[in-house]
Amino acid sequence: MKIALVQMNVVATPKDNLAHAKELLQEAKNLGADIAVLPEIFICGYNNACFPEHAQPENSPFMEEMAKMVGELGIYLVAGSIPELDGDLIYNTSYVYNPQGEIIAKHRKMHLFDIDVKGGQYFKESDVLSPGDTFTTFATPWGKMGLMICFDIRFPELARLLTLDGAKGIFVPAAFNMTTGPAHWELSFRARAMDNQVYMAGVSPARNTEASYVAYGHSISTSPWGDVIHQMDVTEGVAIVEWDLEQVDRIREQLPFLSGRRRDLYELQKK
Amino acid sequence: MKIALVQMNVVATPKDNLAHAKELLQEAKNLGADIAVLPEIFICGYNNACFPEHAQPENSPFMEEMAKMVGELGIYLVAGSIPELDGDLIYNTSYVYNPQGEIIAKHRKMHLFDIDVKGGQYFKESDVLSPGDTFTTFATPWGKMGLMICFDIRFPELARLLTLDGAKGIFVPAAFNMTTGPAHWELSFRARAMDNQVYMAGVSPARNTEASYVAYGHSISTSPWGDVIHQMDVTEGVAIVEWDLEQVDRIREQLPFLSGRRRDLYELQKK
Repeated sequence: MKIALVQMNVVATPKDNLAHAKELLQEAKNLGADIAVLPEIFICGYNNACFPEHAQPENSPFMEEMAKMVGELGIYLVAGSIPELDGDLIYNTSYVYNPQGEIIAKHRKMHLFDIDVKGGQYFKESDVLSPGDTFTTFATPWGKMGLMICFDIRFPELARLLTLDGAKGIFVPAAFNMTTGPAHWELSFRARAMDNQVYMAGVSPARNTEASYVAYGHSISTSPWGDVIHQMDVTEGVAIVEWDLEQVDRIREQLPFLSGRRRDLYELQKK
Repeated sequence: MKIALVQMNVVATPKDNLAHAKELLQEAKNLGADIAVLPEIFICGYNNACFPEHAQPENSPFMEEMAKMVGELGIYLVAGSIPELDGDLIYNTSYVYNPQGEIIAKHRKMHLFDIDVKGGQYFKESDVLSPGDTFTTFATPWGKMGLMICFDIRFPELARLLTLDGAKGIFVPAAFNMTTGPAHWELSFRARAMDNQVYMAGVSPARNTEASYVAYGHSISTSPWGDVIHQMDVTEGVAIVEWDLEQVDRIREQLPFLSGRRRDLYELQKK
């Protein structure tokens, strides 16, 4: 099972980004990818002005073009995320397509990114966005997968619940910044992978130091043993990583982190 | 607030270990430690034969001697762990003493260590030990602290619950091995610290390659930002680390990992 991390350089306009994504996804297809993953908010620059300006209803020409593109490529696509317009509300939403270009899952970012690090990053998504309220997994021919977006990874509860729902791999379109990226990006992906004994894939935009929000890059995949399988640098590119989902079961047998939970003493539950 | 990581070389007999611990704790005291931490099962070699042979009821001469030692030193002590005999049952138990030598908390290892890594470590504590069933925090003049033992750290639920109970630092007497140590020791301490924005201190026995169970060493402390404050090597020694518990509140304000939990969608609760 081959996963393509598509660390694309995101520009200001949706049309240009979609055309560029198409080129990179063709490269991923040529490299034998089964599932390709784009970064968070790949249709415009990641900032609170972009979200309302470029938010897409599900029947927009952009969305039709995206579905057509995926059908032509014939590949599973975790389509990063886009600002989704639903009535008056805007969500940060990741759509998943099957190789026929049909949407098989969508995840609305559940934990909005509101941070204020002294001398570091400030950002407040909740000024503009609404949070999602569903836990997202989807079936593939290789096994069940989970889906979250960027700041969602900060909350160990979500990765645990996706794992308990049967996810053996979790995809995370993301855009960590130059404060939290160096400090926490690799650590977060390794930790969620180790604790839940799942594969993880995190895809960031390439780093653009001229942008108002500078993404860390370093798209990554980690193994159910907690190792880094591959980590990219900061420039644009497509990296292929291989996942062996049987490894998930083998590791869970050796180290009983899931079966060893003391469910008689504590329980994590959806409401 | 100064924490002493006391990475002692553990031998076979309780009497020798207690005498040796006293020397090292005096060194910790001389270095200005407020709280000293000993390793898991510091009274005999970590193996399933040791547990029943040296298990201590709470009124044993060994326990009286330990209380007397702490009172003479006048220091808070997280007394690693010992096999505790209670009726017919044996627990892996960590006692905490105040500077008057009084027991102010005890934690019985909640998650027993049962692993079977192919080509790596095999161990089954549950052959001999019974698991504890209480969540352990204790008050100090600096703030509330949490307590767990070794394999307990594998379960993110426990560190989260101790944090929600108010712990700003979590002590972990432990003895990772040569399979899981290099793979997961540092990662586990960094992850729990980052996710819960707490200080962590993990203390291992020094490495003894002649023992049946070879401990990884590398006693460690991590910060609420997820950094390693200090990590020891494999040989015996006392290391002092400084904790500033106000840093916990500052980081929680900047990165709202606790207040940002979607408690309307999921909840981790004790039973």
